[in-house]
Amino acid sequence: MAAQPEPEAVPPPDGPPQELAEVQDAWRRALADLDNLRKRYARELEDVRRAERARTAAEWLPVLDNLELALAHAHADPASIVQGVEAVRDQAVDAMERLGYPRQEEKGVPFDPGRHEVVGVVDDPDAEPGTVVKVLRPGYGLDDRQLRPMAVTVSQRRE
Amino acid sequence: MAAQPEPEAVPPPDGPPQELAEVQDAWRRALADLDNLRKRYARELEDVRRAERARTAAEWLPVLDNLELALAHAHADPASIVQGVEAVRDQAVDAMERLGYPRQEEKGVPFDPGRHEVVGVVDDPDAEPGTVVKVLRPGYGLDDRQLRPMAVTVSQRRE
Repeated sequence: MAAQPEPEAVPPPDGPPQELAEVQDAWRRALADLDNLRKRYARELEDVRRAERARTAAEWLPVLDNLELALAHAHADPASIVQGVEAVRDQAVDAMERLGYPRQEEKGVPFDPGRHEVVGVVDDPDAEPGTVVKVLRPGYGLDDRQLRPMAVTVSQRRE
Repeated sequence: MAAQPEPEAVPPPDGPPQELAEVQDAWRRALADLDNLRKRYARELEDVRRAERARTAAEWLPVLDNLELALAHAHADPASIVQGVEAVRDQAVDAMERLGYPRQEEKGVPFDPGRHEVVGVVDDPDAEPGTVVKVLRPGYGLDDRQLRPMAVTVSQRRE
């Protein structure tokens, strides 16, 4: 969003006004600027939300278009669809990554409650205790920009 | 986002301060409030953007999950994939609509430069002059919330 001009409430370079009427006037102007800033911000907030929503949704337009192309091709050449849909899936994963939500599906790493949602605990003698054995559903995003955690099974901790 | 307390720069109920030192002080406080408010808004705008991006991207998570389920099924039952992918396509179109971008693909309507991107003009004796004959790519959204216009061919106007 383009920067808008700020209200002019900077103190004059030669210090605060000295005359009572002058400084009362400066004070009233500062209050009016505060009021305008609040109103402007309320309007801007809705614009910012709308622009971000449009920007994010637009990332999905080519995914949706290609899904429909894959379907259209499928009627002519049924064998083509799996490959086509796999390409669309990759494109969707790329869109998530461009939006700041890289796919998370690493196995064998230590269980981390911030990144993993435990769906089951398994007794797997080949796995390090307390590590991710199976990813049932990939996660998207990391740390404070996490869209959702990975759903996983974790190997039992041995006491 | 929860409302935060506003800076206290309201005029006292008994009118503006009368003493020079008092009114200079009130003026300085108003300037400080203005500065704080600007800084707070700058931080808040980034939070608002991030929250809106996450909310919008989250609408696509079930679409992506179901695309992968359709692919997983396809290996077991190749015939199932077209139906599965059609359902995912419908789900993606619903997600666009929930975000405020309903699909646009109506034929036979008068050409409207605000909604239609003309890809070709055709001479179709069966069509009303100046109407949408064929939709080559659907549009999403309407009016000032348009994500993209429909790409169409339009029937030639007769002079």
